[in-house]
Amino acid sequence: MRFIICWELCLLAISPYVAARPGLPGPAARVHSLRHPAQRHDGNGASKHACEPPENVAISAPKRNIFQTLTEQEYADVTAYLHEQKELNLTAIVNSTSWDNVIVTMDVLQPNKTDALVYLDQDGPPPPRFARATLQFNSQEQPYLQEYMVGPLPLSDSTAHYEELNYMFTSGRGRTNVYNADGEAIALFNLEVGKDIKDITQRLLNGTATGAEDDNLLIAGSDPLMHIGDRVYQWNEFYSAHTGEFFSETVLPTSLQFKVDLTGRDPSKWSVVGWYYDGHYWPSTAEFKKGVESLKRTPGPVVDGPWTSTDHAGESLPRDNLYPPVSVQPDGPRFGVDMKENYVEWMDFTFYISNHKDVGMQLHDIRYKGERLVYELGLQEAMAHYASLDPLHANSAYLDTGYGIGTSQWNLVDGFDCPSHATYLNTTFYISETTYVHPNSLCLFEYDTGYPIQRHLTGTYVSATKNIAFIVRAVSTVGNYDYLFEYGFHYDGSITATVRASGYIQGAFWSGDDGYGFHIYDNLSGSMHDHVINFKLDLDIKGRNNSLLKSEFVPKTQVYPWSEGRSINTMQVEHTYITNEDDAKITWSKNGAASYAVVNKDALNKYGEAPGYRIFPNSGSTAYLTVQSSSALGNSINWATHNLYALQHHDTEPKSAYAFNSHDPHNPTVDFNEFFNGESLEQEDIVLTFLIRYFNLGTHHLPNTADLPNTVTTTAMSSIAIAPQNYFAGDVSRRTIHGVRLSFDETSTITEKNIFGTQQPMCMYDLKKAAPDLDTFVGELQIPKFPWNPSGSLQTNPGG
Amino acid sequence: MRFIICWELCLLAISPYVAARPGLPGPAARVHSLRHPAQRHDGNGASKHACEPPENVAISAPKRNIFQTLTEQEYADVTAYLHEQKELNLTAIVNSTSWDNVIVTMDVLQPNKTDALVYLDQDGPPPPRFARATLQFNSQEQPYLQEYMVGPLPLSDSTAHYEELNYMFTSGRGRTNVYNADGEAIALFNLEVGKDIKDITQRLLNGTATGAEDDNLLIAGSDPLMHIGDRVYQWNEFYSAHTGEFFSETVLPTSLQFKVDLTGRDPSKWSVVGWYYDGHYWPSTAEFKKGVESLKRTPGPVVDGPWTSTDHAGESLPRDNLYPPVSVQPDGPRFGVDMKENYVEWMDFTFYISNHKDVGMQLHDIRYKGERLVYELGLQEAMAHYASLDPLHANSAYLDTGYGIGTSQWNLVDGFDCPSHATYLNTTFYISETTYVHPNSLCLFEYDTGYPIQRHLTGTYVSATKNIAFIVRAVSTVGNYDYLFEYGFHYDGSITATVRASGYIQGAFWSGDDGYGFHIYDNLSGSMHDHVINFKLDLDIKGRNNSLLKSEFVPKTQVYPWSEGRSINTMQVEHTYITNEDDAKITWSKNGAASYAVVNKDALNKYGEAPGYRIFPNSGSTAYLTVQSSSALGNSINWATHNLYALQHHDTEPKSAYAFNSHDPHNPTVDFNEFFNGESLEQEDIVLTFLIRYFNLGTHHLPNTADLPNTVTTTAMSSIAIAPQNYFAGDVSRRTIHGVRLSFDETSTITEKNIFGTQQPMCMYDLKKAAPDLDTFVGELQIPKFPWNPSGSLQTNPGG
Repeated sequence: MRFIICWELCLLAISPYVAARPGLPGPAARVHSLRHPAQRHDGNGASKHACEPPENVAISAPKRNIFQTLTEQEYADVTAYLHEQKELNLTAIVNSTSWDNVIVTMDVLQPNKTDALVYLDQDGPPPPRFARATLQFNSQEQPYLQEYMVGPLPLSDSTAHYEELNYMFTSGRGRTNVYNADGEAIALFNLEVGKDIKDITQRLLNGTATGAEDDNLLIAGSDPLMHIGDRVYQWNEFYSAHTGEFFSETVLPTSLQFKVDLTGRDPSKWSVVGWYYDGHYWPSTAEFKKGVESLKRTPGPVVDGPWTSTDHAGESLPRDNLYPPVSVQPDGPRFGVDMKENYVEWMDFTFYISNHKDVGMQLHDIRYKGERLVYELGLQEAMAHYASLDPLHANSAYLDTGYGIGTSQWNLVDGFDCPSHATYLNTTFYISETTYVHPNSLCLFEYDTGYPIQRHLTGTYVSATKNIAFIVRAVSTVGNYDYLFEYGFHYDGSITATVRASGYIQGAFWSGDDGYGFHIYDNLSGSMHDHVINFKLDLDIKGRNNSLLKSEFVPKTQVYPWSEGRSINTMQVEHTYITNEDDAKITWSKNGAASYAVVNKDALNKYGEAPGYRIFPNSGSTAYLTVQSSSALGNSINWATHNLYALQHHDTEPKSAYAFNSHDPHNPTVDFNEFFNGESLEQEDIVLTFLIRYFNLGTHHLPNTADLPNTVTTTAMSSIAIAPQNYFAGDVSRRTIHGVRLSFDETSTITEKNIFGTQQPMCMYDLKKAAPDLDTFVGELQIPKFPWNPSGSLQTNPGG
Repeated sequence: MRFIICWELCLLAISPYVAARPGLPGPAARVHSLRHPAQRHDGNGASKHACEPPENVAISAPKRNIFQTLTEQEYADVTAYLHEQKELNLTAIVNSTSWDNVIVTMDVLQPNKTDALVYLDQDGPPPPRFARATLQFNSQEQPYLQEYMVGPLPLSDSTAHYEELNYMFTSGRGRTNVYNADGEAIALFNLEVGKDIKDITQRLLNGTATGAEDDNLLIAGSDPLMHIGDRVYQWNEFYSAHTGEFFSETVLPTSLQFKVDLTGRDPSKWSVVGWYYDGHYWPSTAEFKKGVESLKRTPGPVVDGPWTSTDHAGESLPRDNLYPPVSVQPDGPRFGVDMKENYVEWMDFTFYISNHKDVGMQLHDIRYKGERLVYELGLQEAMAHYASLDPLHANSAYLDTGYGIGTSQWNLVDGFDCPSHATYLNTTFYISETTYVHPNSLCLFEYDTGYPIQRHLTGTYVSATKNIAFIVRAVSTVGNYDYLFEYGFHYDGSITATVRASGYIQGAFWSGDDGYGFHIYDNLSGSMHDHVINFKLDLDIKGRNNSLLKSEFVPKTQVYPWSEGRSINTMQVEHTYITNEDDAKITWSKNGAASYAVVNKDALNKYGEAPGYRIFPNSGSTAYLTVQSSSALGNSINWATHNLYALQHHDTEPKSAYAFNSHDPHNPTVDFNEFFNGESLEQEDIVLTFLIRYFNLGTHHLPNTADLPNTVTTTAMSSIAIAPQNYFAGDVSRRTIHGVRLSFDETSTITEKNIFGTQQPMCMYDLKKAAPDLDTFVGELQIPKFPWNPSGSLQTNPGG
């Protein structure tokens, strides 16, 4: 057993219990039969009957979900097929060493949009179905990943074939060099360093990292690796192991760091080529050992304690012993789910959900009343880019799809992550010849936002409409941080995409580095960083031929016929079309003066306006990366330079990013910039990819004491909305019956009460139904992106 | 009976039922006695007992609410006292003509902060209490308003006095010229114009506005009046009266407009000096009459119809017949209210609420655990500034405190405007010698936001905490638009201020004017406009001596000791203090790179950081005015040019705006710019005034078909947050017990369930309790800001 792609899989690979997890529920956990809706009473007395809401509404998708990942059978078939291909020279994972070629991961190859639409819109055949396999070739000096497509599925003797999957990569080939194939050897090398200086770590940090049972330090390395010339380096830092119940390592740095030249595959040629401690640098171990003796300041490590506890702490709050308001669903869910096809129907919205190891939950073919609005909406990549006085954090810039947004979507905490009346779905994925099920890792629910979507008062009546939203949510814990991803659907036809963040920050050691973060605890810096998350939003407005309309409020000084020569200081709205990709890297304008909409100029409404959906910041801030031409990530993150991009659609450009770009960030397999080649955007099929970024402080995350122990979601959030613009004839929220118009006369008597057929449930709701179900949480293992902890984990590696 | 300040009070003044409204509930409507909390059961069977939540928690304020408006007795006493002052020559409203001096309005004079703190913090005496009275002097050629202070209260023979209230006005005097004192005469003049051209209106618009019973047009004038040289003008437009049940006039323009020179007080000298129709302009009535005959295009008016109905409309939505999720409060409210003092306690937040005719709901002395965070938080002014091809809308730029944000806070719709478990408070105000009660016009409630405030997953446990927010809300319907104002309090110590908008837009007639809005219905333009709302936020961080810290993320190229000469492209945070008012007009930086916090440098925490609260955009967009040097509003809106301002506190500069500035906008009584005079901001008491703006389209409101019939709150919203920055030692949301930590083992068995004392209610909740109470709605009259409708309202004016 070995580390394959270690900063992605190392802890997964060493878990003793993932593969053998017994008794996982099948799909559609928490599914119950449809029961009768609650009885209603109109009398004035107390309700007599218990509410008996049904727990699910079963529906059937009109078409197969062609976007969802492979079935168990397909995974098994393709795995077996690949092992039969002798020229690939694959070794089964269980028998493999770090010099064997292996299957790293597998997923469905997303169908070409062109093919998919034939199936979805024209009753044509389903698009050809292929598996996409990522193989790692370790059996030579320079290991590399290569993407393959295998199919068509189901495999048959006559048609099955495989070939390199190259067409969707801007480098021309789905091939990526790998520089950490020997992860286990790297871990052992680092532990040898720990042994070599254990007297120093004992003195400076009150601990050791040697591979021994009683180690109380661990060693974690920078991600990505540093590529300088033809050399490959990694900075490593000693971290205190947590001492209490809380996994708080990312706020327990010690500052002591060493740089390893790990070029090549012969560990005997690897060497320690630099040391750092508390602002000091030594270019060799010898100089370090000498220099560290004469340090005047030896601040010691950050010490774990009650301050890292996420439990209830501090003086209890007044009246907090009472139970807070809680959402109940007296009539059961008002949305339908086809559990087999992951197809969802809420009001007149319908869509498919798929899940993928790298990018997690994705939405497909979102329609309103049968008419497609969105072909595809989903995360492409999530970056966290740090800056620091110390080398490890200065070189930390994570691309989280490499760790796996999908692998990190775990069982949700009922009643806390989602209301207790939520419907839960499972997700599955494949790694190293094993599939994994994450029960209850997506939740779907409606909730009342607590304010009306519409209301108006006049002298004789008042009108108001409830604002009920439908949410699809997943929480992805990528190491120290928990990202709450959700898509929201609203009565007015608008859709929101939101990210919130919680979990532990990744702090750095405080060495007086004012320029990189606040000093937030003894020896701890709230290391500054930018989060930027890239989404793809492929809007189809009344067909595929769309344009990008910019509408900008501009100040004007204007003479009008009626102003009799006088200049009026006023404003106008200027409508222009962005007609070329070269002009379509967009930053939100100063004072939000410009808005952007994808419209269809060939489908003008009766007033001559082009129907469309506009896109705009909804909550928090939607920021792009501060760092310019990042030394850490190079051309891998050219999607992070603006707020919004528009591009012509090509089946050969399906994704802005690639999950393994951070292996070789300066030679990215997908370079988003390559998509921009001056193509027309006039009534083409525009693929809008937009950035949404989750953060604190309105924009960029500058952690302060309020981030301890965990960042809170109240302020660490970012959201984008799309909403109809001249798309419908009027506001479609008028379609709900959950409004009221009350007429009254001069004596304040209600003269008329229009409730449009709303049936208020009059039953007794057993609040046990609203109690969180905390007995079915299916635990999963932790996959820290940081610290990457091969040394600490070797002991529990059954194959190690 | 006459119009006093007609665009503020005209329809109020003519209502036959306001003054005589019988049987209004007293304060504290919907108050019930405290009952026992719900019983709890731990068994697995169905709950047996009914939940019996108490409906209120009564508490006592530690101090009197010195900010709240006058009592009934005080109003009566001061009114009587003023009438006794012969030199004021006041006439009782009921006997007054447009040439009499009258009391327009009255309120408490807010105490000086300096005096208030002696009372609040030092157990000193309450600050001197004075009434503030606004008198209008009509008995001369140039009418004017003058502010007075009267007191001290309670009035006594020995100490009572009155004097001009001048100290808080930048013009040097609380005096404002009034140019529409003869509102009734203006209305009659306009109806004469309507009579004069009734053949034309009949032909062009299929209606008349003559003052007759069967009028089906009405005439509405521009606000503010136009001041050019020493002349005063007003543009007026004919509007179709609504034909159905819905008060939809603001989307029924006709385009036909005339300009009146109403300089001076002799109506015989007033004259029509211009005409406009559908893009055409004529400088005289004679030319108009001639020119209109030869028009090729006579598009007719906008025609009312089902499209203006806010009722349920269109095909019903799937499963919408089921009742949606609803919030219930099984243990009753977890906040305390002193109904007499309008003092509120939620968790460890406490604050006072006051209400005022002009600015509505205001918060005072917001403390956390007894330590003041905010001395004052409240709306100062709300502007809606239009632009148009036609003269009336081009000259429409409303300052809504003149209409009254407070007078427009009406009875909230239970279950729609606020959850059915909300606690409601009444508000009162005084106009023209009458006080008014608006029952149930503030609501206070908690709700579950539906996502956790904190959560983290590891390999052995998951931790999550409910995010329960506390909201104080008022809805202010200023004519066609309904503004939902709310303040939110959160477990993490953050506070939000939010505005959402609904109601009818003010459309303009469509004459092909692409530059001013979309064409959204037959003949209707979705007239573009900016909403800018100015709030005052007076933060006191650990005392009054505060500073303004700017923290900015900046890209850097840097050589480090460890980089061995190599330049690293990275970023840094630059902290600077804004030390002078001249530098303290702030726009949010590009890409949100800079954040701002009010901090106390004299109270550094143990890590040397200055504790503070940062302020940042929370939701929607916070925009300032597009128009530069507005011809309509001149120097009245110098608070609308940036996102954020910081100023030294002076008791003589308590408010950024003045409710009657729009009478004479180019000679404002308060000009915000005058506050900026180069004073130091270093550790002074900083008054932050920030703009929040409610709008559609992310920024500026460019209505489209989705705004018909009403704008929806989903996208028409704007919100600002303040949150602790190094203020507490850690995240204070840890103090709530409504979290969970679940530990699990490798078999997914829950090994430990920490719920920190949370007591899940196990009782039967009668959903009748969650049914909206729609029988107690106390209707109030409409006060349209637009159309200002003296002609249509004369018939119902009992004193007219």
